[in-house]
Amino acid sequence: MTPRAPRAPRPAATRTRRPPDRRTQPPRPAAVGLGGDQVEGRQAVLELLRANARPVRRVLISESLDPAPILDEIETMARRRHVPITYTSAGKLDREALTEGHQGVIARAASIRPIELDDVASDPHALLLVCDGITDPRNLGAMLRSADGAGVTGVVLPRHRSARLTPAVTKTAAGAIEYLRFAHVGGIASAVDRLNRVGVLTVGLAGEAKDSLYVADIGSGPTALVVGGEGDGLSPLVRKRCALVVSIPQRGSLTSLNASAAVSVALYEVARRRGR
Amino acid sequence: MTPRAPRAPRPAATRTRRPPDRRTQPPRPAAVGLGGDQVEGRQAVLELLRANARPVRRVLISESLDPAPILDEIETMARRRHVPITYTSAGKLDREALTEGHQGVIARAASIRPIELDDVASDPHALLLVCDGITDPRNLGAMLRSADGAGVTGVVLPRHRSARLTPAVTKTAAGAIEYLRFAHVGGIASAVDRLNRVGVLTVGLAGEAKDSLYVADIGSGPTALVVGGEGDGLSPLVRKRCALVVSIPQRGSLTSLNASAAVSVALYEVARRRGR
Repeated sequence: MTPRAPRAPRPAATRTRRPPDRRTQPPRPAAVGLGGDQVEGRQAVLELLRANARPVRRVLISESLDPAPILDEIETMARRRHVPITYTSAGKLDREALTEGHQGVIARAASIRPIELDDVASDPHALLLVCDGITDPRNLGAMLRSADGAGVTGVVLPRHRSARLTPAVTKTAAGAIEYLRFAHVGGIASAVDRLNRVGVLTVGLAGEAKDSLYVADIGSGPTALVVGGEGDGLSPLVRKRCALVVSIPQRGSLTSLNASAAVSVALYEVARRRGR
Repeated sequence: MTPRAPRAPRPAATRTRRPPDRRTQPPRPAAVGLGGDQVEGRQAVLELLRANARPVRRVLISESLDPAPILDEIETMARRRHVPITYTSAGKLDREALTEGHQGVIARAASIRPIELDDVASDPHALLLVCDGITDPRNLGAMLRSADGAGVTGVVLPRHRSARLTPAVTKTAAGAIEYLRFAHVGGIASAVDRLNRVGVLTVGLAGEAKDSLYVADIGSGPTALVVGGEGDGLSPLVRKRCALVVSIPQRGSLTSLNASAAVSVALYEVARRRGR
């Protein structure tokens, strides 16, 4: 390597006129919000329009798609919602996309607005999904899709060390984020504390827990399923604060299910016990 | 375009000495087998070695990996099984890999050998997973991982219109293919017929079925869960041959679960009913 020459001081005029250096700025507000402002994939965009739960600014559709009923539905629904459609080249759409699974359709919308934890907890029939550090977007998206199916009434996500509602999450969730309510909390341990205090039964899911999901006393009252990250599972602090910690029996040779499969099985079992 | 010149006949000497033209040859046997001969990803390779159910020719490990306990386990287990380890550059491993999820570890092994349908069906405690045209490798892999967890005793895959046990399937299955038994059948409809005849209760899973999984009379005898492809679900013929067709209740706004989430929920529900 050649030695670096000492850097000459930048002229003052240039320095005052250049935009602030992003590297030294605090993160922009969007980066700490829930996200959800770019939605990719046909089903996800269709559900965004159908749900009509947040403003949609624009739908981009590739010019070179083969006809498909779902594309007609998207166009019809966009017109009904007075959302402008831009037809664009496949190459341009690829450049605008943040996932590989956009299927030729992208929408730009207002971000998902979180609600207060106490608001999701106050439902007497609450079935909550509390995510403690799920970082794989596909896992989070798959959990959200199953959460909708199982009738989850609120999802609790941490502000840090977790996937946000990125296009990859949204795509895998296949529209579920439009119908779910989200609370965005500073820490999962204190959120679990709060849920305990307001009478929600907090049930942690941990592969190595001694109590089986199928024998645990999960009643008919408000319930929160608390799940940990893909690698390490529940953090020790969160686990300690859960009222119950249960595992899903493994009858084969592997020691654990995929995180989103475990959540699907557990949410449907809780829903089954609480009555159909 | 410039007109193509008429092709001169190739000299006989060259023709007889060149290898057969693959484009005009029938597919090689490997292409119609179950696959499984290349295994990628740390957990999948570790389980391949642990299970010791088929010959492993070689393990390739990237030279530039950070230390991790699972890498030590893979090395220890490979030595115990007398499987040679080749340490190679990250670039070379990337070129050898068929998925992006190899995590620096690839193994070459003998293909998975299918067994006869009647052999998987004859188990008095049979819990079978019958896949009717699952083409998404990640969905198939996720189903197989959950199948192991739920105690499935055999998986039935069709020879055509289905994902084989490719590295993408194997990676997502996280080792489950080493412990499961597979039957490879010409057609799913006739396989369902055969299962009916030998006393296995065939239960189709279809989003729009009227009967709920939770109220269906799924007894304690041998049971097969029959699942369809991601897009179209069960084919009409297969559906007609199933003894029961059930759906998983959707309590939210979406109309269906992801195929592998549905399989996870249904297999665990069948396992729960048949007794822990």
